[in-house]
Amino acid sequence: MSERTAICPGSYDPVTNGHLDIIGRTSRVFDRVIVAVVGQGIRKSTTMFTADERRDFLVDATGGLANVEIEIFTNLLVDFARERRATAIVKGLRAISDFEYELEMNQLNRKLAPELESVYFFASPDYSFLRSTGVKEMATFGGDVSDLVPAPVAEALHRRARR
Amino acid sequence: MSERTAICPGSYDPVTNGHLDIIGRTSRVFDRVIVAVVGQGIRKSTTMFTADERRDFLVDATGGLANVEIEIFTNLLVDFARERRATAIVKGLRAISDFEYELEMNQLNRKLAPELESVYFFASPDYSFLRSTGVKEMATFGGDVSDLVPAPVAEALHRRARR
Amino acid sequence: MSERTAICPGSYDPVTNGHLDIIGRTSRVFDRVIVAVVGQGIRKSTTMFTADERRDFLVDATGGLANVEIEIFTNLLVDFARERRATAIVKGLRAISDFEYELEMNQLNRKLAPELESVYFFASPDYSFLRSTGVKEMATFGGDVSDLVPAPVAEALHRRARR
Amino acid sequence: MSERTAICPGSYDPVTNGHLDIIGRTSRVFDRVIVAVVGQGIRKSTTMFTADERRDFLVDATGGLANVEIEIFTNLLVDFARERRATAIVKGLRAISDFEYELEMNQLNRKLAPELESVYFFASPDYSFLRSTGVKEMATFGGDVSDLVPAPVAEALHRRARR
Amino acid sequence: MSERTAICPGSYDPVTNGHLDIIGRTSRVFDRVIVAVVGQGIRKSTTMFTADERRDFLVDATGGLANVEIEIFTNLLVDFARERRATAIVKGLRAISDFEYELEMNQLNRKLAPELESVYFFASPDYSFLRSTGVKEMATFGGDVSDLVPAPVAEALHRRARR
Amino acid sequence: MSERTAICPGSYDPVTNGHLDIIGRTSRVFDRVIVAVVGQGIRKSTTMFTADERRDFLVDATGGLANVEIEIFTNLLVDFARERRATAIVKGLRAISDFEYELEMNQLNRKLAPELESVYFFASPDYSFLRSTGVKEMATFGGDVSDLVPAPVAEALHRRARR
Repeated sequence: MSERTAICPGSYDPVTNGHLDIIGRTSRVFDRVIVAVVGQGIRKSTTMFTADERRDFLVDATGGLANVEIEIFTNLLVDFARERRATAIVKGLRAISDFEYELEMNQLNRKLAPELESVYFFASPDYSFLRSTGVKEMATFGGDVSDLVPAPVAEALHRRARR
Repeated sequence: MSERTAICPGSYDPVTNGHLDIIGRTSRVFDRVIVAVVGQGIRKSTTMFTADERRDFLVDATGGLANVEIEIFTNLLVDFARERRATAIVKGLRAISDFEYELEMNQLNRKLAPELESVYFFASPDYSFLRSTGVKEMATFGGDVSDLVPAPVAEALHRRARR
Repeated sequence: MSERTAICPGSYDPVTNGHLDIIGRTSRVFDRVIVAVVGQGIRKSTTMFTADERRDFLVDATGGLANVEIEIFTNLLVDFARERRATAIVKGLRAISDFEYELEMNQLNRKLAPELESVYFFASPDYSFLRSTGVKEMATFGGDVSDLVPAPVAEALHRRARR
Repeated sequence: MSERTAICPGSYDPVTNGHLDIIGRTSRVFDRVIVAVVGQGIRKSTTMFTADERRDFLVDATGGLANVEIEIFTNLLVDFARERRATAIVKGLRAISDFEYELEMNQLNRKLAPELESVYFFASPDYSFLRSTGVKEMATFGGDVSDLVPAPVAEALHRRARR
Repeated sequence: MSERTAICPGSYDPVTNGHLDIIGRTSRVFDRVIVAVVGQGIRKSTTMFTADERRDFLVDATGGLANVEIEIFTNLLVDFARERRATAIVKGLRAISDFEYELEMNQLNRKLAPELESVYFFASPDYSFLRSTGVKEMATFGGDVSDLVPAPVAEALHRRARR
Repeated sequence: MSERTAICPGSYDPVTNGHLDIIGRTSRVFDRVIVAVVGQGIRKSTTMFTADERRDFLVDATGGLANVEIEIFTNLLVDFARERRATAIVKGLRAISDFEYELEMNQLNRKLAPELESVYFFASPDYSFLRSTGVKEMATFGGDVSDLVPAPVAEALHRRARR
């Protein structure tokens, strides 16, 4: 038995309880989990939080899981996964639109790195409606997001909304 | 690190190259794979091959994979998975219709066995069109299925078609 | 304000907690609800329970809702809805496959009865995985369905499974 | 029987004949309809017409329906619906992509306001292809949109296209 | 310029106005159209009308189109298309479920006959809800199908329903 | 037999091997193919390459196909198709999201030009994951796109990425 490492990539802008559910479930199926935060990309200004802020929210929220690490990556995902000797990339699927997007990414990644597997979890029904974008919109309109994201994220969103 | 066991359930009536692709990829991600063949069910007469025949085709076709075993199961899948102390149930997803069916099964299984995870692979593009049903229809019309299923299965299908 | 009558049609073979959720929500939006049980149809032998049994389960399970009635219908749904002077036909949508089927039925019904509206509820996430067919299969394999259907239905299913 | 109020929310930038079809059908199923126009939002500059212009087009186009009112809202939809003591939020569904988006919104709104129902109409086949975005693009290229939107909207679009 | 032959395959049990719309549009895009009626297949007893009856309805209904022929075929579709030196197989797409099924058939046929193209028309909105199965069910319940199928088909369906 | 002209419209920003596959297959089904490059549109600055650059890549890549021409168009597609006396507009379908978008466009175009047909090819499995957007992102991150686009396009993308 060799160590099984999974990569959970995403923007995490910001992390939601839905992301944490997938990360937690991955940590029970694999030996080691690297949550890979997309750093500065080609569409430079589109995130609400900086890569460092997004990573720090994740570090804080996954503190109780011994086999989970958080890293920022700035290269191609398949190159990052190879450097970390990952067994698999792990993604959550909520809806048909996710399915199609992920299928496309999957086939592109297989072309680039045939030896790297991608595996998928279905989002829990409790979180299948949850997108970072929706959370940010709700917070902007003064909605209560404390059930949807970790407490420090909720506070940060409300501070920004008040501006 | 504990041993990671995956269950690959299915009717396998008969096994196709698409099934074998998923089984092979599962055997690289997990330590041990149990291919679980649906035995006698409620819809008794609908399979073309008996459970024993379907298992034997699988035993033959997966002979080269050291960490793969084949078993027939006749109880509820989640009960079988618990008995085998499985880490996860593994399924392949080819299309949206698979996605919806599997999502439904997933939520039903979570209700019955919340501690059991299900993970999904996307079918390889080369096999995304491949269903056992389609293979059986083609063989019935005299089509050549030798690229789609293992050789012994192709022979058995052609023997039945000639009757 | 005229009285608003909704028709909730279905096979209800047997009624599940998901059906009851839609019926209950309909009873809060409309003044009067007629749950319309499909009687003897063209595919005669496919139901597990007779129309009378299916109606009786519904009568029992909706006893607490003052504005809900149960009826068996044996003609075209749009003709039944017209006879009852219904404002709308009400259906639940769980998944994309439901959406497509219902869209097709909707357009067919509009052709037959342009003045009759159909409105849709989304299934609650707790019940989106629930189909009568799945419940029947689970019961056949000895699975516990007491969280999924009303108690008398669960008992009837288990009695049949033991045969 | 209490009065049944429905809320029809949207950007209506600008109102199309497809929107008017849904509003008209809602006015036949419910006692009172409030068409709720999204006001200044977080994505401030993306509408072609101001909230006042969009409301005025709607007031003009729904003039013949006695039980329909138009209002601009600037808070969370569920808060607006509560203030108006709405029985239900009403949306039109045209396509699978609508279905998924609305399902997500539905589940988010249920979390925020469990007592508030959302009900859906299927778009009429004659309007299922119609989006405000498509109409604006066509008008920009000089296409004739007079069959797709009310006459005053068509005129306004053509005036803008000539600039 | 060589002659362009299209094959329109189907069960046509029975032909509907939706089928005729696709056949008519194909006859305007291609030089010659062969409507290929599925003959005796593996699921022997499932059609309501015999292959001869289904062909005769088509011959009658397409009488006005000079470049359309009707044939029954009993071999694999790709083999039939090759024998007729077809340029393309033509299918209509109504819904997502059609899309997935046709995509699967397409990929299977490409594997069997890479040189043979398949092209698709979208069903007209007026007919997108129309399936032979739905028409047969409606007729069984005494519904009026005279807007949905050619007159001789409607008569035949009503004769069978009266039995 | 009259000459059959097909229009293959698109942004082609830049052309991919997936586009070329559809263009090549169209050139075998129709007598003449006009690849119609979207020129300056309403969303002016969103293309990476100018209309002239995009056309030149296409001219270069389709050089071996005698019956294919490349043109830039700046009016409504249906008007352009009419001017060229086209028999049909041809599009490729890769995924469900394509299907829905194209269905909408199809119905809009039918409203504008009922005599003009649109026909669809399914993308080859080898290219079903390929979008110009994905190729541009990969090139930006330094990924190797030489299997996905013609050589001159790959070079141009890498030159831009190095900036």
